[in-house]
Amino acid sequence: MDKIKAIVSRIAPLDAKVMDQAQKKLDLLTKPQGSLGRLEDLAKQLAGIIGALPKNIKDKVVFTFAADHGVTAEGVSAYPSEVTAQMVYNFLAGGAGINVLARHVGARVAVADLGIKTELKIKNEKLKIRKVGSGTKNMAKEPAMTESEAVKSIEAGMEIFEEELAKGLDIAATGEMGIGNTTAASCITAVIAGKDITAVCGRGTGLDDQGLSRKVSAINKAIALNKPDKNNALDVLAKVGGFEIGALAGVILAAAANKKPIVIDGFISGAAALIAFGIEPKCRDYMIAGHVGIEPGHRIILEHLGLKPLLDLDLRLGEGTGAALAIGIIDAAVKILNEMATFESAGVSEKK
Amino acid sequence: MDKIKAIVSRIAPLDAKVMDQAQKKLDLLTKPQGSLGRLEDLAKQLAGIIGALPKNIKDKVVFTFAADHGVTAEGVSAYPSEVTAQMVYNFLAGGAGINVLARHVGARVAVADLGIKTELKIKNEKLKIRKVGSGTKNMAKEPAMTESEAVKSIEAGMEIFEEELAKGLDIAATGEMGIGNTTAASCITAVIAGKDITAVCGRGTGLDDQGLSRKVSAINKAIALNKPDKNNALDVLAKVGGFEIGALAGVILAAAANKKPIVIDGFISGAAALIAFGIEPKCRDYMIAGHVGIEPGHRIILEHLGLKPLLDLDLRLGEGTGAALAIGIIDAAVKILNEMATFESAGVSEKK
Repeated sequence: MDKIKAIVSRIAPLDAKVMDQAQKKLDLLTKPQGSLGRLEDLAKQLAGIIGALPKNIKDKVVFTFAADHGVTAEGVSAYPSEVTAQMVYNFLAGGAGINVLARHVGARVAVADLGIKTELKIKNEKLKIRKVGSGTKNMAKEPAMTESEAVKSIEAGMEIFEEELAKGLDIAATGEMGIGNTTAASCITAVIAGKDITAVCGRGTGLDDQGLSRKVSAINKAIALNKPDKNNALDVLAKVGGFEIGALAGVILAAAANKKPIVIDGFISGAAALIAFGIEPKCRDYMIAGHVGIEPGHRIILEHLGLKPLLDLDLRLGEGTGAALAIGIIDAAVKILNEMATFESAGVSEKK
Repeated sequence: MDKIKAIVSRIAPLDAKVMDQAQKKLDLLTKPQGSLGRLEDLAKQLAGIIGALPKNIKDKVVFTFAADHGVTAEGVSAYPSEVTAQMVYNFLAGGAGINVLARHVGARVAVADLGIKTELKIKNEKLKIRKVGSGTKNMAKEPAMTESEAVKSIEAGMEIFEEELAKGLDIAATGEMGIGNTTAASCITAVIAGKDITAVCGRGTGLDDQGLSRKVSAINKAIALNKPDKNNALDVLAKVGGFEIGALAGVILAAAANKKPIVIDGFISGAAALIAFGIEPKCRDYMIAGHVGIEPGHRIILEHLGLKPLLDLDLRLGEGTGAALAIGIIDAAVKILNEMATFESAGVSEKK
């Protein structure tokens, strides 16, 4: 807990003075003021985050964290739990969606095992092994994890962030893999945003009607049994969360403490953002909502956080895929700030 | 007119068989079926357009066409007409928004003068000079151009497309620059979509209330005086259009005839799409709506064409900027189709 407190205490508001400088620079460029819309907002936000006019975004890191969920015993997923580990092998081999999209935007993928049920058979230096447990417990029957495990998961995320920061990091993005984790994300969202389960809960990787009804029932049981305290994010994480979700909350808090922009991916990453926001609301200004996916709870999260998504492409894969695509847009925003001519340099007449 | 007829007669429906093949390939990849949403739709559409599974998108061309508008005499723009020519110099020097964003996605910009009022002072091999006239006439007082000029503008666009195609072209995008051209686009949209001027007309590059009221009044005069026939796209183009708009319609039709995807940029490009669609509705399936901007008429155009925009980033610059950003997403879609592992190759279990 000391590590979390130390990092969280470093999170400061954005630098308003540098944001003004960015706005002034944007207004000199050869375009009607504000006509590049959200690209201009992004350039300004980045300036406020890093405390300087951003020159370029060189080192891009997608944190793709994997863990298993005991609640799969309730039949809440269309895929078997084994897929979590299988997909981690796929991440390491470079064949998953996130690998393709990270390469597309020039990002590296930091893959970590925060608590996959099985031991992965191969060692690969690209895989960080930070198991908090062998999957969470079945939250429909008991708390998903202890409070001490919740703390450990957040701290693990913070440490992984710091490792990547040491290698060079200009922008971070969240991503995940964990069969059953839309169930955990639905619980977190329903509790923290105070919404009805049926408004929050979707079909995940592709549940049929019966599966969806099992999922709603498992979530209802989990909340009734564990009674997570909506005003205590750590309690919510422990009772109905997941190891990868806690670790992503750690990444978000560490990014904000280190003045780095953090791109939030889909629904599960959004649930991690809710936990991070619950721990320290100031981290919100460091977030960029990469996209809004089709899980209904995702919109509820973005509303709760007051974030407007950059993309809306009907994605529901997770892994960090939507965040990776968004990095391409954020990169473009920084290039606009740096590469466009000014009215003066280009000899273009200003507004009448 | 013969050239237009010859090209338009070559526009065929998309290849449904290849689209099925693309769908089958997408369904083998390591992700829940359909979970990459619009990326999957794009990959499939591209397959149908080119008649084969797309391997990569190498040559990307943004067609940024410039021309002046006589209707600026009515005080319909926040910027003086001289800016059209000044911005063309800026395009050639690489300092405009479209240059930055085209470089970002690896596209080249094909800049053409379709009818700028003044003679540009420098010759630059990068600029194609295809003047149909020295700006259109003031459509609030007479038709913007003759029918023969309308035909010439479309043919000029087709010829420029063919020139670029000969150099190598896998995807095309539209863009424009022309002080006063949101007025022309508003007229075209109101007439073809059958909407009230006030629903269509926006503030362009940044009009105040008085300017907006002058613009609405000029559009009302232009339509009342010229009586464009909504069922005759060439008539609409001639009476209330612009040279760059006609030429972009030519690019769109030529792209469809040559089985190339064409990314439509903002409101003015959308008006060109309306003209192209009016001439041959089959060209619609070759279009990808790059984004929806904040000019109110843009949404009306997309609804009329039945297109869903890829991006929604509050852009209102034109030049092809939104289309360029969209090319980055389309590129990603093709990489997904080609670079992702299959369930079989990666040894991942399928849905229960």
